[in-house]
Amino acid sequence: MRSFALLGAPKTSWPLNLPNQLKQAQSEGNILIGVDRGSLLLKEMGLAANLAVGDFDSLKKSELFQVEKAVPDVRYSVPEKDLTDTELALWYAFEDYQVEFLTLVGATGGRLDHFLANLFMVLKPQFRQYAEKLAIMDQQNLIRFFNAGKHTVKKMREYNYFGVISLTAIEGLNISGAKYNLGNYSNTSPVSLSSNEFLPNQDTFKLSFKKGLVAVIQSRDIIRYPNI
Amino acid sequence: MRSFALLGAPKTSWPLNLPNQLKQAQSEGNILIGVDRGSLLLKEMGLAANLAVGDFDSLKKSELFQVEKAVPDVRYSVPEKDLTDTELALWYAFEDYQVEFLTLVGATGGRLDHFLANLFMVLKPQFRQYAEKLAIMDQQNLIRFFNAGKHTVKKMREYNYFGVISLTAIEGLNISGAKYNLGNYSNTSPVSLSSNEFLPNQDTFKLSFKKGLVAVIQSRDIIRYPNI
Repeated sequence: MRSFALLGAPKTSWPLNLPNQLKQAQSEGNILIGVDRGSLLLKEMGLAANLAVGDFDSLKKSELFQVEKAVPDVRYSVPEKDLTDTELALWYAFEDYQVEFLTLVGATGGRLDHFLANLFMVLKPQFRQYAEKLAIMDQQNLIRFFNAGKHTVKKMREYNYFGVISLTAIEGLNISGAKYNLGNYSNTSPVSLSSNEFLPNQDTFKLSFKKGLVAVIQSRDIIRYPNI
Repeated sequence: MRSFALLGAPKTSWPLNLPNQLKQAQSEGNILIGVDRGSLLLKEMGLAANLAVGDFDSLKKSELFQVEKAVPDVRYSVPEKDLTDTELALWYAFEDYQVEFLTLVGATGGRLDHFLANLFMVLKPQFRQYAEKLAIMDQQNLIRFFNAGKHTVKKMREYNYFGVISLTAIEGLNISGAKYNLGNYSNTSPVSLSSNEFLPNQDTFKLSFKKGLVAVIQSRDIIRYPNI
C-alpha cells in the first residue's frame, strides 16, 4: 500500500502530474490524506481524501463544508497542540489505517519552519519507528529516511544527484558505489553531504552508519516550471 | 555594510523585487557575490558581482566568459573540495572583504540537499563565528541564526509568523512575548517549533537558551507568484 498525504505548501513545488499520480494510487486501494488545506486542494483536483486532518483555520466555512461533505473521516485538531497536523496525520495513517508506506507531498517550499518540522518529525521518539516508511516528495526531490544499519539506496529514475544528510550526530558513516565515496565519517552536528551522484549505469549506492538518523535526498535539476 | 550572495536555486523562490534590492545595496557600497550560476544570474539582471566564486561547471564557456569579463574578482573552486562554493563565498566575504553582514538569496527551493548544506553551514566549527552575521532570505522566509545567550528578535514588516528551530541539541530554551511562549525547553535532537506568531502590535519577541544553535525563521503567507 503506497499512500499519500497532501499538505498545504504552494503548488509550485508539487511533483509533476500530481493529480494523476494520486488518482491512480487511490484507485489501487491506497489512501489519500488531506492535511489541513491539503484536503481542499485534493477536492479541487477532483479527488476526495479518505481522511482529512487539521484545525482547518485557513479554510473558509464554505470550503470546510465542502471537505466535510466529500471526506468520510474528518479529524479536527486544536491549534494549541503538541503535535502538528502532519504528525497527527502520520500517526492515524500508520496506527488506524495501517498503511505500509506514506509519501508526503506539498511539504516543501512555502514556510520553511513547516518544512523543517516535517523533516525533523522522524527524530521525535514516537515517530522514529516510521522513519523508513516515510518519504517527502516534490518536483525535484525525493527524501527518504534511514536508521542506523546497512542500506542499499535505489535510484529513482532521472534523479541522478543525491545528498546524504545526517539529522543528528552521526557515527561511522560509509558511502560506497557512488561518485564521491566516504569511509567511517563521524560528526557531532547535523551536516548535509550534498551534490553526490549515482555512478553512470548504476542504480544503487551503499550507505551504512552505526549511530544517528540520516535523510537521503535524491534530486534532479528542474525540468520545467509547472503551470500554476 | 549589508552584502548579498546570490546562489543558483530557482528564481521562483527569489525575494520580490530582488534586482532592485541588490542594485540599491551595491550602490550604497555593499558587495554582491555570485556563487556559481548566481554570477550569471546577476549579470542577466544587469548587475556585476564584485566577487564570483564557483567551479562554474553548470555554465557554458560563453557564459563563463561573460562572468569573467564583468566581475573583477573571480575565484575558481574545484568540484572535489571539502568546502561548498557557498562556504567559500562566506569565508572570502568575511575574511577578505570584511563584510559585516551577509544575506544569501537563491539558497532555498531547488535541490534540498543544497538548501540543507546552507542551513547547516553555521554548525561547522570554522563558520560558527559568522552565525549571527548571516541571513537566508527568500520570497516568504527570513532565516537568522543565534548562538546561546539572550536575544531580542525583531519582526520584519509583514512577516507575522515565526518558527524557532534548534539545529542541534538544545538546553534551557525560553520564548517570551510571543503568541506561544515556552519555558526551559530542552531536546537532544533538532526540532522545529513552528507556526508561532508575533503578538499584534508588538514587533519583537524574546529568545534565550543556554546551549545549542538556533535558527529563527520569520515567514509570511505567499502574496503572489512571481513573474518567471
